[in-house]
Amino acid sequence: MRNALFPALMLSSGLLLTPQVAQADEGQWQPYQMPSIAPQLKARGIDIPAKQLADLSQYPMNAVVGLGYCTASFVSPQGLVVTNHHCAYRAVQFNSKKQHNYLAEGFLAKNFEQELSAGPNERLYITEAVTDVTKQVNANIGTDPLERYENIQANRKALIKECEQDQNYRCSVRSFHNGLEYFLIKQLIIRDVRLVYAPPESAGAFGGDVDNYEYPRHVADFTFLRAYVGQDGKPASYAKDNVPYKPKSHLKINTKGVKAGDGVFVAGYPGSTNRYRLSSELSFASDWLYPTLAKRYQLRIDTIKQMGANDQDISIKYAGTLAGMANRMKKYNGLLDGFKATDINGIKQNRENDFRAWLANDPRNQSFQQQFDTLEELLVKQRQQRQDNYYFNNAQSSSLLTTANRLYRLAKEKQKPDAEREEGYQQRDMKLFKARLNRLDTSFDIRVDKALWLQDLTAYFAQQNRIAPLDAALNQHHSGTQLSEQLDTFYSSTSLTDSSKRLAWMDADVEAFESSQDPFIQLAVALYDTKMQAELESKTLTGQLSKARPEYMKAVISYYQANDWPVYPDANGTLRISYGMVDGYQSADALYKQPFTTLEGLAAKHTGIAPFNAPEKLLTAIEQQRYGDYKVDSVYRDPASWLCRLFSCMAKPERFDTVPVNFLSSVDTTGGNSGSPVFNGKGELVGLNFDSTYEAITKDWFFNPTITRAIHVDIRYVLWMMEEVDGADNLIKELDLVGN
Amino acid sequence: MRNALFPALMLSSGLLLTPQVAQADEGQWQPYQMPSIAPQLKARGIDIPAKQLADLSQYPMNAVVGLGYCTASFVSPQGLVVTNHHCAYRAVQFNSKKQHNYLAEGFLAKNFEQELSAGPNERLYITEAVTDVTKQVNANIGTDPLERYENIQANRKALIKECEQDQNYRCSVRSFHNGLEYFLIKQLIIRDVRLVYAPPESAGAFGGDVDNYEYPRHVADFTFLRAYVGQDGKPASYAKDNVPYKPKSHLKINTKGVKAGDGVFVAGYPGSTNRYRLSSELSFASDWLYPTLAKRYQLRIDTIKQMGANDQDISIKYAGTLAGMANRMKKYNGLLDGFKATDINGIKQNRENDFRAWLANDPRNQSFQQQFDTLEELLVKQRQQRQDNYYFNNAQSSSLLTTANRLYRLAKEKQKPDAEREEGYQQRDMKLFKARLNRLDTSFDIRVDKALWLQDLTAYFAQQNRIAPLDAALNQHHSGTQLSEQLDTFYSSTSLTDSSKRLAWMDADVEAFESSQDPFIQLAVALYDTKMQAELESKTLTGQLSKARPEYMKAVISYYQANDWPVYPDANGTLRISYGMVDGYQSADALYKQPFTTLEGLAAKHTGIAPFNAPEKLLTAIEQQRYGDYKVDSVYRDPASWLCRLFSCMAKPERFDTVPVNFLSSVDTTGGNSGSPVFNGKGELVGLNFDSTYEAITKDWFFNPTITRAIHVDIRYVLWMMEEVDGADNLIKELDLVGN
Repeated sequence: MRNALFPALMLSSGLLLTPQVAQADEGQWQPYQMPSIAPQLKARGIDIPAKQLADLSQYPMNAVVGLGYCTASFVSPQGLVVTNHHCAYRAVQFNSKKQHNYLAEGFLAKNFEQELSAGPNERLYITEAVTDVTKQVNANIGTDPLERYENIQANRKALIKECEQDQNYRCSVRSFHNGLEYFLIKQLIIRDVRLVYAPPESAGAFGGDVDNYEYPRHVADFTFLRAYVGQDGKPASYAKDNVPYKPKSHLKINTKGVKAGDGVFVAGYPGSTNRYRLSSELSFASDWLYPTLAKRYQLRIDTIKQMGANDQDISIKYAGTLAGMANRMKKYNGLLDGFKATDINGIKQNRENDFRAWLANDPRNQSFQQQFDTLEELLVKQRQQRQDNYYFNNAQSSSLLTTANRLYRLAKEKQKPDAEREEGYQQRDMKLFKARLNRLDTSFDIRVDKALWLQDLTAYFAQQNRIAPLDAALNQHHSGTQLSEQLDTFYSSTSLTDSSKRLAWMDADVEAFESSQDPFIQLAVALYDTKMQAELESKTLTGQLSKARPEYMKAVISYYQANDWPVYPDANGTLRISYGMVDGYQSADALYKQPFTTLEGLAAKHTGIAPFNAPEKLLTAIEQQRYGDYKVDSVYRDPASWLCRLFSCMAKPERFDTVPVNFLSSVDTTGGNSGSPVFNGKGELVGLNFDSTYEAITKDWFFNPTITRAIHVDIRYVLWMMEEVDGADNLIKELDLVGN
Repeated sequence: MRNALFPALMLSSGLLLTPQVAQADEGQWQPYQMPSIAPQLKARGIDIPAKQLADLSQYPMNAVVGLGYCTASFVSPQGLVVTNHHCAYRAVQFNSKKQHNYLAEGFLAKNFEQELSAGPNERLYITEAVTDVTKQVNANIGTDPLERYENIQANRKALIKECEQDQNYRCSVRSFHNGLEYFLIKQLIIRDVRLVYAPPESAGAFGGDVDNYEYPRHVADFTFLRAYVGQDGKPASYAKDNVPYKPKSHLKINTKGVKAGDGVFVAGYPGSTNRYRLSSELSFASDWLYPTLAKRYQLRIDTIKQMGANDQDISIKYAGTLAGMANRMKKYNGLLDGFKATDINGIKQNRENDFRAWLANDPRNQSFQQQFDTLEELLVKQRQQRQDNYYFNNAQSSSLLTTANRLYRLAKEKQKPDAEREEGYQQRDMKLFKARLNRLDTSFDIRVDKALWLQDLTAYFAQQNRIAPLDAALNQHHSGTQLSEQLDTFYSSTSLTDSSKRLAWMDADVEAFESSQDPFIQLAVALYDTKMQAELESKTLTGQLSKARPEYMKAVISYYQANDWPVYPDANGTLRISYGMVDGYQSADALYKQPFTTLEGLAAKHTGIAPFNAPEKLLTAIEQQRYGDYKVDSVYRDPASWLCRLFSCMAKPERFDTVPVNFLSSVDTTGGNSGSPVFNGKGELVGLNFDSTYEAITKDWFFNPTITRAIHVDIRYVLWMMEEVDGADNLIKELDLVGN
């Protein structure tokens, strides 16, 4: 996947493992931790003071912006923001019409007036404060598992509510180290976001899905947006006379970029990793979970593709869904290939054995050893729950049933005071809830929905763990024509396909649902108790884990510290910094991937057939060698030099007299880091993170420094595109360009 | 293609051209030329005296052996010969039966008695003398074009006849520099060749067609044969009590192999190159010939595959044909991709313009300029002939019609004295002629033959250039069911499918053919005059070219010499030496291919599914790290070293503590060089050549030193297989192993 954050589980690790260098550059650090790794940063040539990086109110961290699913940064005093093209895709799509297809043609506003609203749902989030609230979250939570769960939730909600008194802020309480710590994150929300400049998709997504997760890469994966606020300088919804937001700071851009070996760091919002998970959890994921999910995904992809091939309406409606699924499939395949290539579970198992041995020598070992065993028991239970519920959960995959489930749940939750409602059903969630209900039409077709649901129901009926109300609702039809016809009656008699009727259900009470004749609503009502029972069991287990996990993590952290290994929390969607160096990697036996790609490499890959159809003006600029100020001189060593001969330089270093396009570094990223600014050692912008290499997909589980590389757009390519290809001089003028 | 020589035209060139190094290591040198490049050899670290390499009676050239389509070398005093597995494939296949499938299981004779005949048609050729016979060939040939052609042929035949007085020798007169020079090649023929040791196909052809022309590679592409002679020491046909041949010398084997940057050279029998061809000839090849041939090949491949999918008999009979076609298709694709990647024709055109400018400044320019123009005119004619005959020639593609054509031609030729007969129809050719007639059955199926012929006839009828007797023979049926049914009558009433009847035609006279009722024989008779007319035109043109080409070559050579460029004749199946160094290459933007692959790389590519199904015992030896004496220490520089940091080593050099499997060098090879010994600077064996990289396929037309790499089996892998995997200790004992 490109490093945008897709909801649901995000997982990652490698090939050719060389254990002696196994900790280098690993870590998605909380900013406050930076001073603790100051020596490592220094050694990588990162000269900006670690203390400065720890301070969210100072440059450069106060210029880093979240998009909710991606990262961006301010690059001008007038609120200009740069992120990835694939992160701003929705904003471009929102403004694309038949008469001006900005996706295909690209878009450039030559002045403020031409800037277009990115859409009513686009937001920029600026993290202003991160406060340790562990004590508050754990206050008076008791010992009963379910009570623990409910009390933790209540404490979190109370903290959020207090923090969100000012409606310009979004607050969240995130668990770190699996509940060992909690932090309250306070983010300013910018609600008027506008599209400023996007290259054509044929450059911004050159290589498309074919190149997704691959390297060498040649993508102009950048787009410029602008933050607008009310005339009072406060966040406001889109209004014509809003004014550009003046950020606290904006990033300096170094026009000389970086070279191989240079230290770099990125700041951003990585979504989720599983680095501290137990080997039993990894086994479950590699042996059951991923293969099972991959199999179902492939089936769904095949079905949608086949139906789309015969029907353009389907193919348009499901294009986004399919792209997301293709991305996820590649991730699953990368995970499974990665586990095959490197015995990560063996490595984890060894480390766990070593950990247990270390515990045995620890004065506290008695209690830790026991907690370890307790945790393993709970995890067995958790896996059992997951497997037990798998087919039943899938059996509710119809978008209409999902909608009915959520609407009925809303009616149920509304019977409670707002503070006590389940997350997602509180007053603060209603705008998003409504938007989601509205959006259904654009990506839904009855025929596809039915076909996919039928597949899931068939799989459900093929196994033994059945839920009586579901079986009853389908008249005990388990397969074939009868089941198919049964589903037809569902679709023909529901009114949920009508968006106004769908929305009206948001205000309906429980009785209205219970007396409804709509088959999907009826099914939702029929399944409710079963689902709540499963939720209760899950919450109870979560309550148990909320004690066992932190205890385990405490011991693991002591063990890591004793070994001098980096200790940082798993990614959880909060602001992090990771560092590394510009570097190639050994992709396979005798196959070395060098850190920079070039304009000429792009031209060589151009076939004229999408996704390898670079824009004509881009190719012309390359052909004419109009490199502008962004050409890299041959700073790279000549392999034929006497020095090289003397020291037997066998692998040829790169040399080029052209503009670099994309580059690799060893920084530690994952989904959500898309669009993250890549900084040089002085904290100047030198690139935008956008993807990881295929071999590195398993890094969510295990960070293998020899093969884990992130892929970045070189800032020189961005500037070159602006200057030589798209004529974005007005924007160049806004930027704060510095030389070396 | 693996570097075995397949009949018919063989062509080759590249990417990422860097002109400043454009002559390095180019050249398929005649041995006598070696002293002229002594300084270059020295500079590459090749210390064996150039004079010694020029002497075919001395080590190491007297240990180099030809197979007719491949190269091999003597490696023991008892006639043990090593070549590629794919070169000895027929020998292994010949001995494979259901009860002992040596192709699948591999074969190892533990003593002389167990060694098996490689088959009645296997030969080893040892080049003993190469004599300049330019004067004799050009003696009294006159000026009339056709007469020139006939007289040159007569002079060649006379020289061959004289040379072949001793029946243990095969002689040939080969044209060098397109007729500028002629050499008489005298080769001793070993007729009793036996199979000694071949690894299983799953190791010897690991990666199969998928990896053909590709790198990184992991192939045990070697097989050991043994030369046997009569008890008198003279060549003899297979007889049980023959004795091993004692070669004049045998190669020393260096167990330490080579490392990146080392100078190496290969000796062998490259088949054909087109490096001195004019740009107009290249345009014809790249724009018409290759695309046209590739299109027809793909059609034929698709047809055979489709028919084979439904019929195992077809799939077995055409397996060899299909493999050859797949190889050829990959070559065509490589040529066309290569021409797209590098504007070779532009380079050639520039050079030609420069040549013309140079000619204008030369005192002899008047005559040369004119000859240049004359040559271009003749070449236009030649291309016209080729295009005119293309569809008619294909329209005779039925194997039965080809057979009938050859048989009738034989009857016609036999009316002349043996010396005057066409090459291929003389007494000396009859054994091969008969063998070919016999072989038809094993690779022929009426349904496939008809389907392919029908395709070619359909294409013939779709164009205007038609031959009346052919149209008449097919009753003017041009397409569809009628044509198909017409062909059915051919196949149902011919007796050429009966091998004894087919062979009987070898003794039939012209009258017998002319009165035959066999439709294929009748068609051969009907087409004879047309074909002879075309042959006459072709011979006349060849006669004209036999004057124009040498004149042109003389001028080109002067021009090359004035520029200090290497001058060596195009490959023509005669013994050549080329040199270079062990080196990786830039395969694409940011993609560097390193010179050595490893055992671990092989294991990583093993999937268990052919062609990536390495033998279990091989994998076990790798897993147990049983490296024997063949492990390479980490002589390669550590990229993390202070030296490397100081000099910014950006591309990681390779390092490994394992056994190298295959390696790359910049030596200049082409089809026919398969099995060629790869020597270190002292003339010790360090590997076997077996293939070229995909990017280098265009090298037959233009040698691009930055991307042209040959692929070799590392001798350490051969020895390791013998010792650690297959237990070939008996053979190891025979070898002359030396350390560094």
